[in-house]
Order: sequence, then structure tokens, then C-alpha cells
Amino acid sequence: MKARVHVSLKTGVLDPQGKAIGLTLANLGFTGLGEVRQGKLIELELTEDDAEAARKSVEEMCEKLLANTVIENYAIEFEDD
Amino acid sequence: MKARVHVSLKTGVLDPQGKAIGLTLANLGFTGLGEVRQGKLIELELTEDDAEAARKSVEEMCEKLLANTVIENYAIEFEDD
Repeated sequence: MKARVHVSLKTGVLDPQGKAIGLTLANLGFTGLGEVRQGKLIELELTEDDAEAARKSVEEMCEKLLANTVIENYAIEFEDD
Repeated sequence: MKARVHVSLKTGVLDPQGKAIGLTLANLGFTGLGEVRQGKLIELELTEDDAEAARKSVEEMCEKLLANTVIENYAIEFEDD
């Protein structure tokens, strides 16, 4: 089983990296752009087959390591092989 | 309209950051983990309403700035507000 974790900054948290991307896109001539935000995407391969146990385990990984829950949100998606 | 761009390293490209995450998770006691890979998630707000035009524009952004297509793949997803 494959899990994908999306980690993004919470609304209201400054995102200078996203801002830099937005400014560079504007400098390249792209128009019609609103806010740009950059987050992380973490792909995990799991040997666990039980969906419920896998979700619990990945949630614990997010809380302990993958996301800083003070300033970041995370979302977990599963993909069956 | 909101676009989400997932940028991930191509298969076969070394990912030391993903490896570090995998090792740390193992050190924290998580078992049953295979490969871990880290990518980027870029969220863009677009004023463009036409889905076809928006896709073309975001693809051009990926080719020009958001992804290094020599070593990275990208996937684009749209979300209507």
C-alpha cells in the first residue's frame, strides 16, 4: 500500500517560498495568479495491508515527525498497488 | 480556480531527503516501511475560469519554473472553488 502525505502551511502563516514562486512566475509573464503556496509531498510505501491500521500509523508519523502541527496541516491519501 | 501541482523525483533519482525521513521514522519505532520519497506540493490560485486554458498555463509554469523536468515529474490537479 502506498500513502501520500500532503503537508501545507496553515492559513495565515507566512510563506516566503510560495511568494518567491509567485513573483518569479509574474516576472516570467504569467498573469491571473493569486496566492501561491508551497508545501511538501511525502510518499511512503507500507507493507501494512489493513487500511485502518495503515491510516493510524501514518497519522502518528505525521504528528511525530512529518508535520509541524503548530504551523502546518496534513492530509493523508492512500493508493492501493 | 485552484491548481495543485505535485512535483516528485523521477524513479531512479536518488532522494537523500526521503531516505533521511525513512531512517528517522524507523528510529522512532515505525515498522513496515518501504521506500520514502519527498516531493513538493505547489498550490496556485488562478483567476482563469476556462479549464483548458488554465491547464495549458499551469503546464507551461511547470515546464519553465516549477519542475526540473530532467529529474522531476509533475502532476496537475484542479479544484473548483
